[in-house]
Amino acid sequence: MEVEVKAKQAKAAARKMAVVDENTKNLALNHMADALIKDIGKILEANKKDVLEAEKRNIKASLIDRLKLDEKRIEAMAKGLREISTFPDPVGSIEKMWKRPNGLQIGKMRVPIGVIGIIYESRPNVTADAAGLCLKSGNAVILRGGSDAINSNIAISSILAKAAYEAGIPEGAIQLIENTDREEVNRMMKLNGLIDLIIPRGGANLIKNVIENSTVPVIETGVGNCHIFVDETAKFNMAKDIIVNAKVQRPGVCNAVETVLVHKSIAKEFLPLMVEELTSLGVEIRGCQITKQICPQVKEATDKDWETEYLDLILAVKVVDSIDEALDHISKYSTGHSEAIITENYENAMMFLKSVDSAAVYVNASTRFTDGGEFGFGAEIGISTQKMHARGPMGLEELTTYKYVILGSGQIRE
Amino acid sequence: MEVEVKAKQAKAAARKMAVVDENTKNLALNHMADALIKDIGKILEANKKDVLEAEKRNIKASLIDRLKLDEKRIEAMAKGLREISTFPDPVGSIEKMWKRPNGLQIGKMRVPIGVIGIIYESRPNVTADAAGLCLKSGNAVILRGGSDAINSNIAISSILAKAAYEAGIPEGAIQLIENTDREEVNRMMKLNGLIDLIIPRGGANLIKNVIENSTVPVIETGVGNCHIFVDETAKFNMAKDIIVNAKVQRPGVCNAVETVLVHKSIAKEFLPLMVEELTSLGVEIRGCQITKQICPQVKEATDKDWETEYLDLILAVKVVDSIDEALDHISKYSTGHSEAIITENYENAMMFLKSVDSAAVYVNASTRFTDGGEFGFGAEIGISTQKMHARGPMGLEELTTYKYVILGSGQIRE
Repeated sequence: MEVEVKAKQAKAAARKMAVVDENTKNLALNHMADALIKDIGKILEANKKDVLEAEKRNIKASLIDRLKLDEKRIEAMAKGLREISTFPDPVGSIEKMWKRPNGLQIGKMRVPIGVIGIIYESRPNVTADAAGLCLKSGNAVILRGGSDAINSNIAISSILAKAAYEAGIPEGAIQLIENTDREEVNRMMKLNGLIDLIIPRGGANLIKNVIENSTVPVIETGVGNCHIFVDETAKFNMAKDIIVNAKVQRPGVCNAVETVLVHKSIAKEFLPLMVEELTSLGVEIRGCQITKQICPQVKEATDKDWETEYLDLILAVKVVDSIDEALDHISKYSTGHSEAIITENYENAMMFLKSVDSAAVYVNASTRFTDGGEFGFGAEIGISTQKMHARGPMGLEELTTYKYVILGSGQIRE
Repeated sequence: MEVEVKAKQAKAAARKMAVVDENTKNLALNHMADALIKDIGKILEANKKDVLEAEKRNIKASLIDRLKLDEKRIEAMAKGLREISTFPDPVGSIEKMWKRPNGLQIGKMRVPIGVIGIIYESRPNVTADAAGLCLKSGNAVILRGGSDAINSNIAISSILAKAAYEAGIPEGAIQLIENTDREEVNRMMKLNGLIDLIIPRGGANLIKNVIENSTVPVIETGVGNCHIFVDETAKFNMAKDIIVNAKVQRPGVCNAVETVLVHKSIAKEFLPLMVEELTSLGVEIRGCQITKQICPQVKEATDKDWETEYLDLILAVKVVDSIDEALDHISKYSTGHSEAIITENYENAMMFLKSVDSAAVYVNASTRFTDGGEFGFGAEIGISTQKMHARGPMGLEELTTYKYVILGSGQIRE
């Protein structure tokens, strides 16, 4: 029953957290950063155990790389916490108050959500990021990392919790579930009344499991089958540069482009340019039949390609008859993350902005900008791809909710 | 498979709905209102069937009263639709755009949620209200009313859907599930990808069932165990008037007060005044032991009373030692709807506003004001008592979400 006990402690802490002032929170974040650096040896030792264990179980190299910590990575965590201390605290702000005819003054005050559960996989840096963001936004956090990283997570979270407490943060505001059994996480997802929100961070399977089993509200993050549509008026160089950037600059992330749609009237001219450049950069192209006719060297795409988030140097390409066909394709296959149009035509730009139902819709820019830092929000806890509460990069403000505060002078309802 | 088929149609309609202009939506709302009046005979006939059926099954009088329609109630539905046509359309508005150092302009655009499912009980007027609010906010709606009202709901929804379509609203934007089997609603709650949000409207059991079984995001509405705390500085007359208003003016609604907490230092003076007035108005008082010592005529409260939403002329009363004890009690028993403090002390007022974690927190006013109309939002689809997405009265704006629109000139990420 570890999770129930810790969730109750977190709920009690959350009530106190809601009224902790910004200075104390900032002090705590810096103290937490100091503690990570001071105890760097302990963290590396715990992490070594996890890595050895993973190697024993023949876990693949890319996962071990995610798991592995070194001084640089721990310093990056500490730097992240210090950065969070510099972001403005959204809690307590009231954007405006309005007055009703009976004299009541009503305003919407930003308040913490309460207790936030984070369910994540093998990256131990999530432990520090999530703890820092939840703390600054006035929430208590319950961390539930993967079993692969359990020793690292215990080391990091206990250092952070102790440092936070020493700096005046209520006890229980940062909790880690040490029991990594599946039943424990299943119980966590049913703790309505104790946990207010669960954010899964990880692969598609992890997210699907949380959505299907959680009765606590969930914010979906991260899956990005992103599209770029090059219309018949696009500047070829701009289109090519944006596509190369969106595919090649960091292919393993959720805001990388996965499918490019090209208007038929420019396909013959544009596709060879694009394919040549991408191929020279090591990108495998999977094209529709028309693409293949124009560029015979590309592989043929199947329907499965349109729905795949490659997260790799692979790009699906389709020639479309019109902007309507492009919009239909996006509506059918997009995961609601980020889509862009490359165009010089005003009407097409407006139509695309209005019609595409994704968290971020671009005209003439790379999809890679969908990111808390790039949007000017500072750090983010994830990119929401659902429509409720928060969409796109979730920064500190998205980790809060609001309540109505109403100032009266004895008003009663007639 | 009725619900799957209709949800697919609704999803297709939602894409078109998102770009319908405000004039067309307003025209449709007025045309729908006209159609309800024109076909008033059909609706009354269908409703008669429902009422006869309910009487046959010996359903209790208060439920039959909710179910029963007459000309006045249908006229009220039509009036409601016309009113919705006068509210401003939130869709498409962008509060501000900011510019990033690389020249990207970023803004948050209000957009419809998509497909909204409403699961409700016996009041057939919900059919018209929900259809109107979802239409004006650019959403497609799937209505799933109770079996008691099925004939009325079919009549109303088909009249509304036809009138909306005639006025230029995409076909399929207003749908009613005619199959009232429980399995059908269970399937509805799993249609992630087709339905974006489910709002349950009804009693605590209905809401609990939807929260436990829906994998589609849910907004909880309506359960209100509301508190008023009278502190040691309160003006007695103001406190008494507010409590009487919050308890008696309409005891059956979610924003009525259910428990009054009174500071011990004024209990002896204040409680007899309050109890006398409430008793004379037919309110049954259930008090803690100290309340009973001061006013021996009241019933004794049990722990169950503190957690009960009476929705009736019953009030629980407890004497507390301090504002901290009042805050603890509220934190433990409140359902997060509406709470008020009656005070002349600035520090207590600020403390209460800051600490109470409910959708609406009042100083010196009746909890009965938690209502879309009273807040100045026009009609509402419900009062959210959860923390994600929307809190308190949910008007048109709360039936929308946002997306980021980003205007570039060829920017790529470094």
